Amino acid sequence: MVVTLLSDFGDVYPASMKGVILSINPSVNMVDISHSVPRHDVRAGAFMLMTCARYFPSCTVHIAVVDPGVGTERRGIAIRAGSADGSEQCFIGPDNGLLIPAARSIGESEVYEITNKNLFLPCISSTFHGRDVFAPVGAHISKGLQIGNVGRRIFDFVDLDFGEGEKKDGCLSGKIIFIDQFGNIVTNIHSKVVEFKPGDVLEIQKKRVLFHKSYGFCRKGEPLALIGSHSYLEIAVNQGNAAVFFNKKAGEEITVRKIT
Amino acid sequence: MVVTLLSDFGDVYPASMKGVILSINPSVNMVDISHSVPRHDVRAGAFMLMTCARYFPSCTVHIAVVDPGVGTERRGIAIRAGSADGSEQCFIGPDNGLLIPAARSIGESEVYEITNKNLFLPCISSTFHGRDVFAPVGAHISKGLQIGNVGRRIFDFVDLDFGEGEKKDGCLSGKIIFIDQFGNIVTNIHSKVVEFKPGDVLEIQKKRVLFHKSYGFCRKGEPLALIGSHSYLEIAVNQGNAAVFFNKKAGEEITVRKIT
Amino acid sequence: MVVTLLSDFGDVYPASMKGVILSINPSVNMVDISHSVPRHDVRAGAFMLMTCARYFPSCTVHIAVVDPGVGTERRGIAIRAGSADGSEQCFIGPDNGLLIPAARSIGESEVYEITNKNLFLPCISSTFHGRDVFAPVGAHISKGLQIGNVGRRIFDFVDLDFGEGEKKDGCLSGKIIFIDQFGNIVTNIHSKVVEFKPGDVLEIQKKRVLFHKSYGFCRKGEPLALIGSHSYLEIAVNQGNAAVFFNKKAGEEITVRKIT
Repeated sequence: MVVTLLSDFGDVYPASMKGVILSINPSVNMVDISHSVPRHDVRAGAFMLMTCARYFPSCTVHIAVVDPGVGTERRGIAIRAGSADGSEQCFIGPDNGLLIPAARSIGESEVYEITNKNLFLPCISSTFHGRDVFAPVGAHISKGLQIGNVGRRIFDFVDLDFGEGEKKDGCLSGKIIFIDQFGNIVTNIHSKVVEFKPGDVLEIQKKRVLFHKSYGFCRKGEPLALIGSHSYLEIAVNQGNAAVFFNKKAGEEITVRKIT
Repeated sequence: MVVTLLSDFGDVYPASMKGVILSINPSVNMVDISHSVPRHDVRAGAFMLMTCARYFPSCTVHIAVVDPGVGTERRGIAIRAGSADGSEQCFIGPDNGLLIPAARSIGESEVYEITNKNLFLPCISSTFHGRDVFAPVGAHISKGLQIGNVGRRIFDFVDLDFGEGEKKDGCLSGKIIFIDQFGNIVTNIHSKVVEFKPGDVLEIQKKRVLFHKSYGFCRKGEPLALIGSHSYLEIAVNQGNAAVFFNKKAGEEITVRKIT
Repeated sequence: MVVTLLSDFGDVYPASMKGVILSINPSVNMVDISHSVPRHDVRAGAFMLMTCARYFPSCTVHIAVVDPGVGTERRGIAIRAGSADGSEQCFIGPDNGLLIPAARSIGESEVYEITNKNLFLPCISSTFHGRDVFAPVGAHISKGLQIGNVGRRIFDFVDLDFGEGEKKDGCLSGKIIFIDQFGNIVTNIHSKVVEFKPGDVLEIQKKRVLFHKSYGFCRKGEPLALIGSHSYLEIAVNQGNAAVFFNKKAGEEITVRKIT
């Protein structure tokens, strides 16, 4: 059974979570999605989880913890997301939106509040629910525990939606939902509304940018727009940093206009 | 069977160790605790290992290598640490104190000198005993080799102790044993001697600091004291760097006084 | 079965590859060699893979992706490398030289062009063949697929060779093939042509450098030459950065002369 981990914990702390998981389910196959989510950046974590989840096999349990509210009254949740083909995945973490886009990317989701203390470690710290609550709950689910055993189903969970960029006045208009570690700008403009062809000339932030199929088609240091591996319009600089080049941050608006 | 790895090797080098381990014991489940221990910082590595080890299942083998003396006459050791409930864990690495606090955190420990060359790789480099000595020895133990087969039991191993902070003249007085990657200051003042309540006002380094249950209770940029996930008194700055804020380094003394 | 991964993808992207691999072969044991290869640096990636591969068990599948040409017409290849003792390993990745030194380090190699689209993910992005092509092909091979099923055997693959340093005019003369994350300089001068003894005084870049068996024999900040764990002559500064100290970069020539 596969368990993935995502957090903003950086080094060392994830290992304790893994120890807890292996103590409950020794035959688990664990995969780190990332522990370098920018600290307390729930939206970045939600995007990372969303882009990966669909590639994992049915019955994968994703434990994700970007949790500025740990130790306060914020709830913990477990989600079962089922896809049309009958496969399903589970998501465990804080009720702050982090899990929602990923769960929706799989399919119909049911959200449960985590309240069953029998599943937790005997001592619960105030600062590390990843280790003391979410890891053991996820491990029990990976071992076959029915999700309804974590607590009651809820409908008032915290939502998070990246929105969808759209055509407007002959332009594509959307938002930056993520800037990756290389400075590539990922927009919320989905490939299905993008009608550019390789070689088309675009205007982005008053700069002239060519649309390409991939990085290999333009020179080092040149900006380009392309459909990235997440199926969204991305803006990049070949072997450079587009976020710096265009002076843009996650959350900001972006408009793309075709010139020729 | 679980094998953990901890080192200051950073990138690439740990992979060779994993190849060696898998060549000996293909069914092992490996967990990286950290490979970003500050280089040659035995005390930091010892602390990291100590905070994680207790969360791993019985029979886990921990291979830890922070080893400025590699290639000199320093000895290699293997430790069996047994806890009161009958579970036990093994620790493999250099005889420089690195393994001791973690082994003690599990329970009664027996230390053996690693001298049985039949367990090593055929060629031993002078600079990478992690790969050539400790990885194969750990892999053999994870496969069931009795620890007494590595060499004779010794009693004059290099010790390492973080000490314990204590109450003195109405203050809590201790040492900084670790500063994590976020700048959180971990002291050696154990929660059992801390009697503060949330909301108590403390003086630390001539600064006014509130005691809280968790980060979520104070504002961004504010300092706080709390019982951290390692059960020690920690000093933090919410979403900031306490080591910079208080200008403190690992190893330095720290005094905490309750004002109101 | 063991599958290793090496790339310049950094964070997050490798997780999608792992999800794909686990969806095809759930019982695989995955090891990250590195995802921090300097971006698009095929030679550095080739060196890293070469130094690790020999330590992995027979039948390991190595998926390596440093791929500036992704999405262009560059080919994908799969290599079967067999060693004299009957063990073999497979290498999957772009046809740009990345896999060649590692495959040669194992033994006789057969190279196949990857063209069998039945093995790929249903949708192939233009920018992430690691996830869409190489991960599924590698997973199928790890599950027992005969390598000939990926496509036809080829002989005109892109080659890459680090060369061999040699004795010339009483000096050892070679090239820098890698500088590791600590600034250690790895040359292509193999230990078999190095006849220095511990304590020998060398001249390197007009600086006086002692030959030692290991780091522990010289003082902090002092330069030294030694046979590194890769069996090549390395130049280091104990607890310092040799690349900065000697002002050298990968690819540059280096000459070592014995003074006394």
